[in-house]
Amino acid sequence: MLKKILRLALTAALALGLAAGAQAAQKVYKLKLAETWPPNFPIFGDATKKLAKLVDEMSNGRLKITIDSKNKHKAPFGIFDMVRSGQYDLGHSASYYWKGKDPNTLYFTTMPFGMTAPEQYAWFYYGGGMELMKKVYDKYGLLSFPGGNTGNQMGGWFRKEIKSLDDLKGLKMRIPGFAGEVLAKVGAKPTNIPAGELYTALERNTIDALEWVGPSLDLRMGFHKIAPYYYTGWHEPATELQFLVNKRKFNKLPKDLQAILVTAMKYVAYDMYARSYHDSAVNWEKIKKEYPNIKIRTFPKDVIAALHKANEELLDERAAKDPLAKEIIESQRAYLRKVRAWTNISDKAYLNSVGDMME
Amino acid sequence: MLKKILRLALTAALALGLAAGAQAAQKVYKLKLAETWPPNFPIFGDATKKLAKLVDEMSNGRLKITIDSKNKHKAPFGIFDMVRSGQYDLGHSASYYWKGKDPNTLYFTTMPFGMTAPEQYAWFYYGGGMELMKKVYDKYGLLSFPGGNTGNQMGGWFRKEIKSLDDLKGLKMRIPGFAGEVLAKVGAKPTNIPAGELYTALERNTIDALEWVGPSLDLRMGFHKIAPYYYTGWHEPATELQFLVNKRKFNKLPKDLQAILVTAMKYVAYDMYARSYHDSAVNWEKIKKEYPNIKIRTFPKDVIAALHKANEELLDERAAKDPLAKEIIESQRAYLRKVRAWTNISDKAYLNSVGDMME
Repeated sequence: MLKKILRLALTAALALGLAAGAQAAQKVYKLKLAETWPPNFPIFGDATKKLAKLVDEMSNGRLKITIDSKNKHKAPFGIFDMVRSGQYDLGHSASYYWKGKDPNTLYFTTMPFGMTAPEQYAWFYYGGGMELMKKVYDKYGLLSFPGGNTGNQMGGWFRKEIKSLDDLKGLKMRIPGFAGEVLAKVGAKPTNIPAGELYTALERNTIDALEWVGPSLDLRMGFHKIAPYYYTGWHEPATELQFLVNKRKFNKLPKDLQAILVTAMKYVAYDMYARSYHDSAVNWEKIKKEYPNIKIRTFPKDVIAALHKANEELLDERAAKDPLAKEIIESQRAYLRKVRAWTNISDKAYLNSVGDMME
Repeated sequence: MLKKILRLALTAALALGLAAGAQAAQKVYKLKLAETWPPNFPIFGDATKKLAKLVDEMSNGRLKITIDSKNKHKAPFGIFDMVRSGQYDLGHSASYYWKGKDPNTLYFTTMPFGMTAPEQYAWFYYGGGMELMKKVYDKYGLLSFPGGNTGNQMGGWFRKEIKSLDDLKGLKMRIPGFAGEVLAKVGAKPTNIPAGELYTALERNTIDALEWVGPSLDLRMGFHKIAPYYYTGWHEPATELQFLVNKRKFNKLPKDLQAILVTAMKYVAYDMYARSYHDSAVNWEKIKKEYPNIKIRTFPKDVIAALHKANEELLDERAAKDPLAKEIIESQRAYLRKVRAWTNISDKAYLNSVGDMME
């Protein structure tokens, strides 16, 4: 009888131990992510959902990410502060949104006359870009990673054709950020107008032109009905979103979950570039069919040259003011020279030699 | 006394259970990978090492990959068979090496006049490419994934300039595979010669031209000393390597390790593209400095048009013979039309409008 009780007790203890042991290896870590975008925003919002799903699967449920969109946290441009303070553990946004807080965050999204997406990924991961981004974000207790690329953005919708630099003088254009500063330097009147008021502003001549994104998101805005000249891009050749991570929180994760999180973020970023490329291709085909009157134009050589000169002068000013800005700008310029020379004899030469044969 | 023994026994049983429970969650799975390349082969070999390191870290040591290079398994072009038979669990190679076993494996590496790397990744993951690759590999009990992109390959080293289609007639060129068939169709004499004999063959006029890879690997071969005309590419615009997985072995892995393996392979592939881009840029800068007499050329329009026509005719023949080949060729052609139209108004327009300003 006593033996029987003992045997039962031992079996129970063993089972309890087994379960507890398995459970210890199964401790669940929960991370809260805030994204700049509204709920279910196409492409960008799919990237954060993919991240959450992947880390859940790879960690066997030990790492859970919950996502709050703009409607929940109400602070689309407060992601930096909320992740810094620990209110959120992760953020999905874009580095150049924080240039008001720290001007050196500007350089890690995309730059006018800068690198294309493959060139920029090479710079981030093999050309010193990640190390420079770390220098900028370290002091805020934040880790920053590429968060997905939109690809080359279009130069915008114009009511009238731009035939020379003179046509830009006094032109009222909605174009925010650093590219707006560049346009102002050549005599245009850049302005920023909220998305919801853009169509009316264009219709009532409050503005003469505007840039938005590209085929993937422009069509629903209806700009092509008023401004039929659709210009190719120069100002955002490779817009890279951003994953932000609270460093204290990251350091508390076990090493394997850290590796899972970092790999998943990097993978999701690359994958968003493929997704953006696909969506742009599909939408551009649709636009061409439905609106054959849209006219694709590229800015004339003298316009491009003037914009480029203005761009370099503005960068020189920034470099003169701040040693870290100088380091970043010099790194990007040196890398661009090198990598563009390769692009010119590889993809560019190929695309030009096959011409429009493939379309 | 009896109580004390009971307590000790229970504690021991609980500890035993805890350890066993933790261990059950820690069962180690070992996978053997065979790669086509020699040991420590730059870029390609780094990709497999990165894969092994990542899955080890993400799985907390539960998934281990050991790598055998060419010197060990002695069968660089036997990877398909060895992974199929289960002699190896994983392989790292290139899909077009298997066209002798199954002609439809040809289409998943790169095609003459085909997509660039960003275009092809969009096709693989969002344009139906992965589904078509599955159709080809399913019957062999194999899973196939992108394994890393070299970027656009150069069109080769030529002793004399190619000024018209006539200059290709009778030209003896080392160029293997489908591109060789295309060249034969326009009157050239393609041949394949092992790497070790290439320099001598070129020196002794056994061949007039050859293609190898690009700046990242060509310089060490010395071809530029004999054949100074370095042509831009048309035949391998986006060479994608391949990860092969034995499906039976894959299915035996727990779900979390499956997710870790698949995500790591996809990430490593994308990352190799960034690495290749970087190495090409760095090496091309070096080549230009050290060998200023190398002359970059692009084939004239009539040559490109003739090669393209031959290419399309050869594809038509393949499509007529095999319904699955037809499905793949039609998918690639339709996707290329759509995606190239987007590339033309985005990256291509951008690269042309900024010209050589950036170099």
